[in-house]
Amino acid sequence: MIPDEAALAAAMREAVAESRAALGGVSPNPAVGAVLLAPDGTEIARGHTQPPGGAHAEIEALRRAGDAARDATAVVTLEPCNHTGRTGPCAQALIEAGVARVVYAVSDPNPTAAGGADRLRAAGIEVIAGVGALDARSGPLRGWLFRQRFGRPLVTAKVASTLDGRIAAPDGTSQWITGPLARARAHRQRAELDAIIVGTGTVIADDPALTARLPDGTLHAHQPIRVAMGERDIPDGARIRDTTVGGFRHVRTHDPVEVLAALDNTTWVLVEGGPPIIGAFLDADLVDEVDSYVAPTILGAGPSAVERAATITLADATELHLAGVEQLGSDVLIRSVSDRLLP
Amino acid sequence: MIPDEAALAAAMREAVAESRAALGGVSPNPAVGAVLLAPDGTEIARGHTQPPGGAHAEIEALRRAGDAARDATAVVTLEPCNHTGRTGPCAQALIEAGVARVVYAVSDPNPTAAGGADRLRAAGIEVIAGVGALDARSGPLRGWLFRQRFGRPLVTAKVASTLDGRIAAPDGTSQWITGPLARARAHRQRAELDAIIVGTGTVIADDPALTARLPDGTLHAHQPIRVAMGERDIPDGARIRDTTVGGFRHVRTHDPVEVLAALDNTTWVLVEGGPPIIGAFLDADLVDEVDSYVAPTILGAGPSAVERAATITLADATELHLAGVEQLGSDVLIRSVSDRLLP
Repeated sequence: MIPDEAALAAAMREAVAESRAALGGVSPNPAVGAVLLAPDGTEIARGHTQPPGGAHAEIEALRRAGDAARDATAVVTLEPCNHTGRTGPCAQALIEAGVARVVYAVSDPNPTAAGGADRLRAAGIEVIAGVGALDARSGPLRGWLFRQRFGRPLVTAKVASTLDGRIAAPDGTSQWITGPLARARAHRQRAELDAIIVGTGTVIADDPALTARLPDGTLHAHQPIRVAMGERDIPDGARIRDTTVGGFRHVRTHDPVEVLAALDNTTWVLVEGGPPIIGAFLDADLVDEVDSYVAPTILGAGPSAVERAATITLADATELHLAGVEQLGSDVLIRSVSDRLLP
Repeated sequence: MIPDEAALAAAMREAVAESRAALGGVSPNPAVGAVLLAPDGTEIARGHTQPPGGAHAEIEALRRAGDAARDATAVVTLEPCNHTGRTGPCAQALIEAGVARVVYAVSDPNPTAAGGADRLRAAGIEVIAGVGALDARSGPLRGWLFRQRFGRPLVTAKVASTLDGRIAAPDGTSQWITGPLARARAHRQRAELDAIIVGTGTVIADDPALTARLPDGTLHAHQPIRVAMGERDIPDGARIRDTTVGGFRHVRTHDPVEVLAALDNTTWVLVEGGPPIIGAFLDADLVDEVDSYVAPTILGAGPSAVERAATITLADATELHLAGVEQLGSDVLIRSVSDRLLP
């Protein structure tokens, strides 16, 4: 008896869910999840990628399974690696553990790590590729796959605005435009990505902490690197300098290309503003996704969410693709993506 | 045998649907729908309010049913009137037709027309009130009920903007920010309401037709009155002056209160802009609903959807309630309402 197609699809959904725990803590490596199934289809163990230098997802799951891994089906979100880096190749470990079958969602596009499937097949292990591939691609592997393909991290721009696109009143007041569910989602996202980029102007004007916090104010387990871009000095006492809670970088440039180049170990970064910083990334065609949190409020004056230098006529607009709409309490989240993130 | 509760609720949904055909053409009267059910629950006939001076919904349905109305159940969205205006009282007509039972959703708040239920009961007819009341209140009766309560038409403001709240590029180009499904919905809405209000500045700058058109360009059966507000003259050749397709009014004031007072036969009006006109209605607390059509596009420069004179600090923002989110092709419609439209 072996797990059937539906059982494999269900196990892959679990593997994708497990991989989420790795997000934010493993770049430049992929956030992978693995589930081991017994021949009767019940789960034996699961694991996710550990921080760089630590075990890959398959190794974690195998370690937990021990001898029970023999004749098991390994369900993994990414093709097991065939490459001895700081850790040994996962393909070899699966062979040595005696698994009968390896099911994975996404083939490894990285030439130095690929070949795991061939090695497994050569050892007489059944290999099934492509199960739940679409879900896995758009899940926690997304940033890493993006970096493999485009050579830079995936860039999400976040804006929280009123219905008329304002982020603050003319006098600068801007607290709490969106409600608690929108804020909780935004903080959870901060905990899942590698870096948050803001302009030095925002740091100097607002002194944000840019930490990822739970609704009760405590910190998420993972904190993103806080990146300030721009020529101006960051005050000594600025909250983003507090490295007891997370990393801090000051990249002294206005050029988004240079900022991303400086973040070479990242696969997913968030641009939070201010409006001219988001505008600079758009002008450089370096925004892959826009998360727009919209509150049912109208200001009618005050700065808009995005300010671009290059827009003169309608043809200069950045056209995105609507990827999803979510109601978050009294707010709305509109997710849009560039051509680069289309399936 | 009489129709059971579920059959009555289903018939009321049909009556509400039928009443939609009256929208836009019957103000200042309510847009009512009526369905007549045989004792076995099957539908005999239906009707909706005719233009002012014409038959009410119940009379329409009774006329179509003829002798079959005897012992029928009349399902009506609004309490049958007890008032002889240009038409006779509906309560009396239902009595004379020999119906056994009258079911209605919403009681008539209008003191000169109310009392229909009492008159029906006095004639020995069973009366059930409140079936499907919430649906009926938020459906085609909405504008009329609003006017009964607040003494002015319900005001919806419509904006179509980019994700960053812009309605045009700096050079004024603004065509086709939202897609075909959003435009079709906006045109259908124009056909259902009584008047569209724009500023003289918009008329002079854009020369809009402000007609309600089907996707193929032909006109909807009902056209709203086109209202220009403001002191400036409207050019002789302006398209909104073309009264072969719909009414035209020029109200020479900047004061939204005066504009609404001039539209005394309306129950539902739409404010389409420009940005300072929507701002003036907001500043006067005369916006009851905002329909925000948002395209997944970012301009980063150009005019915002709403411009208000009175906003200085965050406390000046108009806080609305999220009433619904809809995906319309590649665009999003966010519907928000004021306290006045909460159930």
